[in-house]
Amino acid sequence: MKQEETYKKAVELVRSARGKLEVTNKVGAATLEELSIAYTPGVAAPTMAVRDNKALQYQYTARQTMLAIVTDGTAVLGLGDIGPEAAMVVMEGKGVMLKHFAGVDPVPLCLSTKDPDEIVRVVKAVEPSFGFIFLEDISAPRCFEIEERLNRELSIPVFHDDQHGTAIAICAGLKNVMRLTGDKLVDKRIVINGAGASALATFHLLRLCGAQDIVVCDSRGVLSAERTDLNTYKMAVAAESVTRGAKTLKEAVRGADIFIGLSRAGLLSQDMVRSMAPAPTVFGLANPDPEIMPPQALEAGARFVGSGRFDFPNAINNLLAFPGIVRGSIDACVTHVTPGMKLAAAKAIAEFVPDSELRDDNLLPNPLDKRLAQSVARSVAQAAVQDGVARVSC
Amino acid sequence: MKQEETYKKAVELVRSARGKLEVTNKVGAATLEELSIAYTPGVAAPTMAVRDNKALQYQYTARQTMLAIVTDGTAVLGLGDIGPEAAMVVMEGKGVMLKHFAGVDPVPLCLSTKDPDEIVRVVKAVEPSFGFIFLEDISAPRCFEIEERLNRELSIPVFHDDQHGTAIAICAGLKNVMRLTGDKLVDKRIVINGAGASALATFHLLRLCGAQDIVVCDSRGVLSAERTDLNTYKMAVAAESVTRGAKTLKEAVRGADIFIGLSRAGLLSQDMVRSMAPAPTVFGLANPDPEIMPPQALEAGARFVGSGRFDFPNAINNLLAFPGIVRGSIDACVTHVTPGMKLAAAKAIAEFVPDSELRDDNLLPNPLDKRLAQSVARSVAQAAVQDGVARVSC
Repeated sequence: MKQEETYKKAVELVRSARGKLEVTNKVGAATLEELSIAYTPGVAAPTMAVRDNKALQYQYTARQTMLAIVTDGTAVLGLGDIGPEAAMVVMEGKGVMLKHFAGVDPVPLCLSTKDPDEIVRVVKAVEPSFGFIFLEDISAPRCFEIEERLNRELSIPVFHDDQHGTAIAICAGLKNVMRLTGDKLVDKRIVINGAGASALATFHLLRLCGAQDIVVCDSRGVLSAERTDLNTYKMAVAAESVTRGAKTLKEAVRGADIFIGLSRAGLLSQDMVRSMAPAPTVFGLANPDPEIMPPQALEAGARFVGSGRFDFPNAINNLLAFPGIVRGSIDACVTHVTPGMKLAAAKAIAEFVPDSELRDDNLLPNPLDKRLAQSVARSVAQAAVQDGVARVSC
Repeated sequence: MKQEETYKKAVELVRSARGKLEVTNKVGAATLEELSIAYTPGVAAPTMAVRDNKALQYQYTARQTMLAIVTDGTAVLGLGDIGPEAAMVVMEGKGVMLKHFAGVDPVPLCLSTKDPDEIVRVVKAVEPSFGFIFLEDISAPRCFEIEERLNRELSIPVFHDDQHGTAIAICAGLKNVMRLTGDKLVDKRIVINGAGASALATFHLLRLCGAQDIVVCDSRGVLSAERTDLNTYKMAVAAESVTRGAKTLKEAVRGADIFIGLSRAGLLSQDMVRSMAPAPTVFGLANPDPEIMPPQALEAGARFVGSGRFDFPNAINNLLAFPGIVRGSIDACVTHVTPGMKLAAAKAIAEFVPDSELRDDNLLPNPLDKRLAQSVARSVAQAAVQDGVARVSC
């Protein structure tokens, strides 16, 4: 389907349905008996029970599966700071995925404030109604501070999908590249182009996966300890990343095994691909148009080519990751999403592709397969138990 | 059904269903084509449209019917300050009614703060995701300040049901008492016992309905300008109410035509009813047990007897009012709920009972009749247009 046609259908869809989500009743209210049980006077009984034992809230209300999709609309799609009203369209789309693949109850909370203090305060205030806080499309570096503070101050899990969902999907893709080549990530020279939310999270997760030789570039060039224009979060990455003497992206990719683009369309040329190590991996994940179009990357000698798009092979999309992370966290009643849980998710996604189906152009599972999220959820829940963040019951 | 059995079934219901509300998808996500339309890349098209024209949010998302049920859990049922976790059970019950009778999408937001400033701040922050703010079970006098400030600062309607829903239902009941007797409210001596959220709102709405002779009592006696222990809101009522020289409830009801109880069980004795004017109206609305049980009030000579309970005739419950108020406000895209809209709701509820069915023990419509909310909604929307708070489109 052409993009123009997809766009037209997307507008028709939301206009005719008036959005994509609705709230529905799980119980009846049509008879006086149903009313007396679901509403008054019956409601007093479970209410008093929760008053006397707050843990029962998770059994007597929908809280456990109620998930707030929180955004301030500052980094929506590739469109930037478009505000909470327009962001709601995207949050509903994300909600549809969360319902369909993770079976949770997504509630978009599009905020009229961009102040990190205020965002933290609002999310803390609504905490008693939700089992999971899903942060979305909040611009860097504010998103790092907001997620960190919420993780410290809330007792329910917080997950910024733009960071970790993407990082997990990339990590899964690279795991399967290693499966096909028999190589190890520790021996690979990696370049990450981009230093926003997803890029920095990918850096940290790849380090946990064993990668040691990673160059990170932002729009001004390679991150290094010498740079004086870096924020705290980039500085932390610069302290652990390498430069190989490169100052520019072009210099950085020379001889590299793996390119990960989380930046903008067209930033990787065919010549740059040709300058990489033989048969390199090129994941150009800029949306909607990648750093290099997959056919061009292949033509220039890349062996493993991925993009964020479902209309090319090897779609490396956070849709592979977030439903399982969310479901596993909720099933295990976790207090936090740990690095161990993210690693477990990456491993489960990679292993979901059986040897018989693993190919250069089939590195990742079919995102439409509902068993994927279930499988990832099981691994995530197990990791949560190992990491001591799963509550016995909730 | 005995209360014990109702309570048992109410607990079983929420435990087996895990609460009463869920969020569901209005669009599909099972195929790659559905995914590309509802999620990526399709979602970009309606998103950009809303970015360029924020008013389209009401057409392209579910915002218009998304209704936040906001509470801090400080005045829940008759149980008082039981906290946001237990309050969520009640908010879900209210949500079920709002979905069933008003067809909106209710989202409980149970807040972990009791600070009015903070509550106002949180509701303002989430405003872009909702079409209606439904305040519930917030203790007086904080509820007055919170509602006033939200009304000033938001551009979507705000409605505190404990105040106005109850007031409207009472007003409707009294209108039909007047229909049966041919009397006018302006000539009636009224006593309101209670000075909380619903009582003060009822006072103000009855004044708008033409009542002029109203005595209001709190737990310390009759409100009057001489009292030095009144908060601002009670002082404002004392300035417009009368005392008839009474200092106590007992003195106040002597010779009164109408008693409205919004206080506590058992506060009105049969002797007090006997001291009222002949064939008086007695609405004992304390929940779950009224100020006087209906059979006792009738035995003591009351002609029109109402309670808040559906298991007695003349149930005067805010369920008669709030679905229509909400639906009408949403249909007319109002910015505020005006006094004129509340009066229109009371009138519509009263008139929903045809002459042929109006009796001393059948003053009000059947709350289970779904046409009631539709009828109230039409009147409310018309009043909104007259009051200039309806937007042409939203």
